[in-house]
Amino acid sequence: MTHDFENFREQREKGNAAVLATDSLTTKRIFSMDKQAYADGALDKGTKELLGLVASMALRCNDCIDYHLQQAVDRGYTKQQIDEAMSIALLVGGSIVIPHMRHAANSLEFLFAEAEK
Amino acid sequence: MTHDFENFREQREKGNAAVLATDSLTTKRIFSMDKQAYADGALDKGTKELLGLVASMALRCNDCIDYHLQQAVDRGYTKQQIDEAMSIALLVGGSIVIPHMRHAANSLEFLFAEAEK
Amino acid sequence: MTHDFENFREQREKGNAAVLATDSLTTKRIFSMDKQAYADGALDKGTKELLGLVASMALRCNDCIDYHLQQAVDRGYTKQQIDEAMSIALLVGGSIVIPHMRHAANSLEFLFAEAEK
Amino acid sequence: MTHDFENFREQREKGNAAVLATDSLTTKRIFSMDKQAYADGALDKGTKELLGLVASMALRCNDCIDYHLQQAVDRGYTKQQIDEAMSIALLVGGSIVIPHMRHAANSLEFLFAEAEK
Amino acid sequence: MTHDFENFREQREKGNAAVLATDSLTTKRIFSMDKQAYADGALDKGTKELLGLVASMALRCNDCIDYHLQQAVDRGYTKQQIDEAMSIALLVGGSIVIPHMRHAANSLEFLFAEAEK
Amino acid sequence: MTHDFENFREQREKGNAAVLATDSLTTKRIFSMDKQAYADGALDKGTKELLGLVASMALRCNDCIDYHLQQAVDRGYTKQQIDEAMSIALLVGGSIVIPHMRHAANSLEFLFAEAEK
Repeated sequence: MTHDFENFREQREKGNAAVLATDSLTTKRIFSMDKQAYADGALDKGTKELLGLVASMALRCNDCIDYHLQQAVDRGYTKQQIDEAMSIALLVGGSIVIPHMRHAANSLEFLFAEAEK
Repeated sequence: MTHDFENFREQREKGNAAVLATDSLTTKRIFSMDKQAYADGALDKGTKELLGLVASMALRCNDCIDYHLQQAVDRGYTKQQIDEAMSIALLVGGSIVIPHMRHAANSLEFLFAEAEK
Repeated sequence: MTHDFENFREQREKGNAAVLATDSLTTKRIFSMDKQAYADGALDKGTKELLGLVASMALRCNDCIDYHLQQAVDRGYTKQQIDEAMSIALLVGGSIVIPHMRHAANSLEFLFAEAEK
Repeated sequence: MTHDFENFREQREKGNAAVLATDSLTTKRIFSMDKQAYADGALDKGTKELLGLVASMALRCNDCIDYHLQQAVDRGYTKQQIDEAMSIALLVGGSIVIPHMRHAANSLEFLFAEAEK
Repeated sequence: MTHDFENFREQREKGNAAVLATDSLTTKRIFSMDKQAYADGALDKGTKELLGLVASMALRCNDCIDYHLQQAVDRGYTKQQIDEAMSIALLVGGSIVIPHMRHAANSLEFLFAEAEK
Repeated sequence: MTHDFENFREQREKGNAAVLATDSLTTKRIFSMDKQAYADGALDKGTKELLGLVASMALRCNDCIDYHLQQAVDRGYTKQQIDEAMSIALLVGGSIVIPHMRHAANSLEFLFAEAEK
């Protein structure tokens, strides 16, 4: 059975291709910027991914959360570190964030299982 | 066939268990606070559940709406009372809340049918 | 010295007059609806004002908070009851609501002092 | 196979009927206003639909986006024009809007295919 | 006496200079994109400014509203047209937008008076 | 002349005292949690303050931004590091965040000047 996270990956890839078939230069530039903004700089890429994760949770966007969770796991953050980062989003954003915590817990389970393979 | 609301209940229970497998004390405390904040006090529990419902609608969170609808029906609020509470959220939050009104109408139908059994 | 709340009242009255000099029927109708939605119905006016207060806090709008605080005090709600209502908004909306709690505490102080005169 | 957009249409119709079985006059009036606000006036209906689309994207509501996309295509706007309108919502609302751009690209594909039939 | 709108202009200019003293390429690029996104394209600049105005109102940002009001007045839109555009933001965003309608009415009064000089 | 940041500090202290004169246990607990959540844990306090800063910017709360800027400067983060953190909030949250970037630039100027004394 396909895990939700795998569906997300596939839909995201297809969807991005569809969006980038736009003629809008603004849209294209925001997509390209989105790739570059998280690179190592005065802050390292890992920290920036955690910042992106917390911003995504505070603004309550599951797809954005999933994307940054993947990056955080790829960077070697532990479950405990990611849980602490998410707790900041929960505190700042309130109990309305709880359903996104449930979503993230499900995604993390998949990502850590995959990483261990 | 399983109603959306039953799926919500099951997913919510599983998801909460997954979240509470966290090491973050902040997250655990917010979950425990979420249980206690709606208890009888200077305002009764029922009024607080309506407040939670309207906050959840204004912030547009279907899972949160479903949870507070269940509590409101359990407390004996009528359809008309709940409809009036939701109309305040719609007015304050705008037409962007309409899809959540549709979601809530579907949930309420289930909850009142279940209550009558 | 003029209290912030008195400035709010004056600005609100002037501002509403300026908005209602619009030709937009939609805008006029929303303003008129805003007056009628909080009337007694299946829920009493007082409860609806608390709902409006909590929606305004969750969406973080100081002017809207001030307006509903005035209505709640006029309806005879105690400080403790209003504090409990606001605590629901704080819990649902998160620590980002705290500055609006500070604003509301200042407004409430003025309103209760005025009510006692 | 049914396209997501067709499901949306069906669910929306059913859901609206369920909401309008309310006794709340406020809710009924907001629904009726929602129909009238986009009519030709000092601005033409087409421009207003684009405004509704961008407001819906900035506030991140897929159902609202779908509704206004349908109206924009019905009014004869080209893909390029709609893409530019959406790029404003993306710029103002940030990368958190990207998943809604993906959703919209999928809906637009359906709507233009349908329009060509 | 200085009108609020003149203070806004001065603060905005100073503030932008301070922000652009950043080393962050992402921030610089978003500022430069913000200038280019509203240029004539498949949609004309005027329509895009109205879209920016409505997105800013729906997201409730007074400074952003003021900026787009200035652009809309410069493009020759009438009070009635701008009022209709703003009514869409009010309808979609709800009564929580009302304080921003008051703010905008005050700004528009200044801008039209200035334009007539 | 008093800098805006000094006014913020004074108002914040007074306001928090007024809020904590509440009888609501929920409100008291959220305030106490807000102090503890940023302590060293699996992530260090500095990283958590940056996370709090970015969440506050994405949710567009100037007072919250100011508070976390103070903490970040106290922890020894450089202007460049803080600028990069804020650029993530700008990218995720969109151009609507720009006025808060202007506010933050003004606060940072004060905080670094104060730190150098």
